[in-house]
Amino acid sequence: MVDYPVLTLIPEDRLRAQISFLLEIDKLKSVLRRTRLVNGARFENSAEHSWHISVLAIVLSEYSNVPVDVSHVIKMLLVHDIVEVDAGDTFCYDASAELTKAAREQAAADRLFGLLPADQAVELRALWDEFEARRTPEAKFAATMDRVMPILHNHATEGQSWREHGVTVDQVLTRNVPAEEGSERLWGLVKAVVADAVDRGYLSR
Amino acid sequence: MVDYPVLTLIPEDRLRAQISFLLEIDKLKSVLRRTRLVNGARFENSAEHSWHISVLAIVLSEYSNVPVDVSHVIKMLLVHDIVEVDAGDTFCYDASAELTKAAREQAAADRLFGLLPADQAVELRALWDEFEARRTPEAKFAATMDRVMPILHNHATEGQSWREHGVTVDQVLTRNVPAEEGSERLWGLVKAVVADAVDRGYLSR
Repeated sequence: MVDYPVLTLIPEDRLRAQISFLLEIDKLKSVLRRTRLVNGARFENSAEHSWHISVLAIVLSEYSNVPVDVSHVIKMLLVHDIVEVDAGDTFCYDASAELTKAAREQAAADRLFGLLPADQAVELRALWDEFEARRTPEAKFAATMDRVMPILHNHATEGQSWREHGVTVDQVLTRNVPAEEGSERLWGLVKAVVADAVDRGYLSR
Repeated sequence: MVDYPVLTLIPEDRLRAQISFLLEIDKLKSVLRRTRLVNGARFENSAEHSWHISVLAIVLSEYSNVPVDVSHVIKMLLVHDIVEVDAGDTFCYDASAELTKAAREQAAADRLFGLLPADQAVELRALWDEFEARRTPEAKFAATMDRVMPILHNHATEGQSWREHGVTVDQVLTRNVPAEEGSERLWGLVKAVVADAVDRGYLSR
């Protein structure tokens, strides 16, 4: 359970559970990613990142390799990082953190989605599981949205997070190749941006 | 036009326009609201707020007075604050700023949605216009989401933004009564939270 004074004002178990979840996920706004804003001013948090790539899905859905249900993509993107409230943001180029990521995020999903009434816990958990499994066309396209935007952020900030962490071009391409499964065209964009970043010295070979 | 170096890498006018819009709206992450995070640590920005109330729509749609297309509600919520990139966040209890808000936001909508290809400019502008007009069931329920969460933030932070700005209970109820058009039950929650805030001394009569 979570403890917020306002919950004592809600007599129905169901609505109280829903509001407790909605208050608890506010913490996603304090989970910082390694990527900076496009203007470089500060690190991006996972909540605003989730908003941004949800708008990407609306604007870029025509580039999906196969037709997708955009609304379903958006719902996945809205919940895809909620586990980070407990598990934190795992830097995608940190191999040792990646090893423990799955277990940390499963425990986080159990607790966080478990705050909801049972039917909604199942519904939101299913969205997250689908996103993680990356098997459906919607999950593949959602994964593409999640990969394209950080590449654009890095280019706009002269490779800031790549340089801070000594990331190489091979690491970037290996990490982001799943974007191709969602969209050949946007994977082409990623490759062009990465190649230009190398030319400009934002990213090392 | 907007100027981002990465745009020179995109040969197609359409994709270049889409990416220019998506880079430009990153600025919404730097538009601060008067509301603090639930933990009180800092002011909330309009991008993370948009994410949060989009999740609200998923979780709370059963409380809509009439059945709504939740996906449509979510799309409206994802774009509802984008005009603030140019127009800034207008504090809802600032009467003089409210007078100029409509003109500022119309100009912002023209420029920002105008960055998109024409068909998408029309599509996203229509979502924003629908949200602003608050006539459809989806727009009414979206407005309810936009009002419920700040009330919960204020209760969690002991009325921080109400106290900082000398807001009274009558102002809060007048401002938030549109929540009733979207959801009788959630308007009941708002009233209960506001009454408790008065009892606790978070909000003055």
